[in-house]
Amino acid sequence: MKFQLHPRLAAGGHDFGRIGGCRLLLKDNAIFPWFLLVPEVEEGVEDLHELSDNRYGEVMEAVRDVSQFVAAYFQPEKLNVACIGNQVRQMHIHIVGRSSEDPAWPGTVWGFEGKKAYLPERVEEIRAALHNRLRLL
Amino acid sequence: MKFQLHPRLAAGGHDFGRIGGCRLLLKDNAIFPWFLLVPEVEEGVEDLHELSDNRYGEVMEAVRDVSQFVAAYFQPEKLNVACIGNQVRQMHIHIVGRSSEDPAWPGTVWGFEGKKAYLPERVEEIRAALHNRLRLL
Repeated sequence: MKFQLHPRLAAGGHDFGRIGGCRLLLKDNAIFPWFLLVPEVEEGVEDLHELSDNRYGEVMEAVRDVSQFVAAYFQPEKLNVACIGNQVRQMHIHIVGRSSEDPAWPGTVWGFEGKKAYLPERVEEIRAALHNRLRLL
Repeated sequence: MKFQLHPRLAAGGHDFGRIGGCRLLLKDNAIFPWFLLVPEVEEGVEDLHELSDNRYGEVMEAVRDVSQFVAAYFQPEKLNVACIGNQVRQMHIHIVGRSSEDPAWPGTVWGFEGKKAYLPERVEEIRAALHNRLRLL
């Protein structure tokens, strides 16, 4: 299977490697700790329930691992975890740390227009912390 | 453990029984096929990754079962599955069938103001179809 990351996902995120058969991206928006897990699946498999038993379990385990990292490292008040994909149809799961101080609170981050690029050194800090905690390929 | 459904969740939905240790509600908004799974967990357990291994697996299985039902019965173009809970903190997972004809498309349903109550006979139709397909308690 030839997997290609959707160009819109690739353009908006920092590539953090692979976990549980998914690409892990940090969305380039420093307003929220916002990760995307992109399962390497065949084109056309867009909804979670379409995954095989094994793949579903594997992807959900990766969601949990990344969620635990976001909770421990960023210490948000709440996590928002979602598989939406109405616009970019390639399956991707959002894992976002939320806080009552963030500018989109209590609304969701989808549809929120604010954006702030990361400083490169901050991206590397987060990458190091992630690699320290999770087994990424 | 004494589990009590949050009054805001209870007020906005039709009780469809229990599956995988979760309450299943149909949100009373006929604009979208919109279900809520509310895991029966202790108060204060608000994020999915805080569930034990077993409970996480069980809840994710219920998410999949309900998603498969929504896909088969309502035949939406896309499912939106999300655990948000910024406002009602009791853990609940949204499973929503989406279509490019629905009034919130391609945005999300969260924050969308439109609402249309179900006719009681339509609720009973959906309930019968669900019970026909899934083992609900």
